[in-house]
Amino acid sequence: MRHTISVLVENKFGVLARIAGLFSARGFNIDSLAVGETQDPAVSCMTIVVNAEDERILEQIKKQLHKLIDIITVIDLTKKEFFERELVLVKVSLDKSNKANLEKIAHKFNAEILHSDKESAIIEAALEEKNIEEFLSVLKEFGIKQLVRTGKIAIPK
Amino acid sequence: MRHTISVLVENKFGVLARIAGLFSARGFNIDSLAVGETQDPAVSCMTIVVNAEDERILEQIKKQLHKLIDIITVIDLTKKEFFERELVLVKVSLDKSNKANLEKIAHKFNAEILHSDKESAIIEAALEEKNIEEFLSVLKEFGIKQLVRTGKIAIPK
Repeated sequence: MRHTISVLVENKFGVLARIAGLFSARGFNIDSLAVGETQDPAVSCMTIVVNAEDERILEQIKKQLHKLIDIITVIDLTKKEFFERELVLVKVSLDKSNKANLEKIAHKFNAEILHSDKESAIIEAALEEKNIEEFLSVLKEFGIKQLVRTGKIAIPK
Repeated sequence: MRHTISVLVENKFGVLARIAGLFSARGFNIDSLAVGETQDPAVSCMTIVVNAEDERILEQIKKQLHKLIDIITVIDLTKKEFFERELVLVKVSLDKSNKANLEKIAHKFNAEILHSDKESAIIEAALEEKNIEEFLSVLKEFGIKQLVRTGKIAIPK
């Protein structure tokens, strides 16, 4: 099962390495991770998405996270209701024939074309996870040259 | 000086912990980090923002990154031209008197109000770094209850 875990941490060096180490020591791959400052510059929020094949091990990891110095709170949002968004920047191949089509797609997904020239375009969208997948599958038809994603962030309802 | 570093890595467990460990072993705090899949599910892209007080040490870190197994490329975008965006979700205090004002701000920053009730609203925006700071300073007047940021992602021009 896929879990979205929100962790508030003291903004000190070494915290990220310790948290990442906790997951990797137990063979857990982090699907996505987004780390940024909160309203308090001394505190960062990490949003971690993991696919837990063994729920018991994830429970252990969460308990160990709680015990780490510099960790303030650990909230598993999976069973809560939350708003979530992920940001993607995508460079796609483009020519005259499909520019109008790209604009139509941008409009549909509330995406923004940041740049376009004769060969390519860069497009940006902030969407829910399920819509990101749909957006990317539509863009695949153009040919994706480069794709950068932020990982999901979430805020409880 | 602030650096934005884009690292392509094999999507395997342990890679993130090793990279985070490289920075923390040298006393570097990562300001923000965004990790997500690329167009190739076997490859992830990490966008790392660090403030380097000592440029020579950062150069050493970058060289060591290059040598790590599972790291494909390391690009310091700092001296290149790139498009950048960061996504924020913000929960602010709200009452009848300032709802119209929030809508005006959302319009100005091309932000979206995802939810609002009698006490609060959740607003989302994807902006350049400098505009994020301005957006957040405007929202401070409402009272920020919760703030989650993805960290910056970037794509070369």
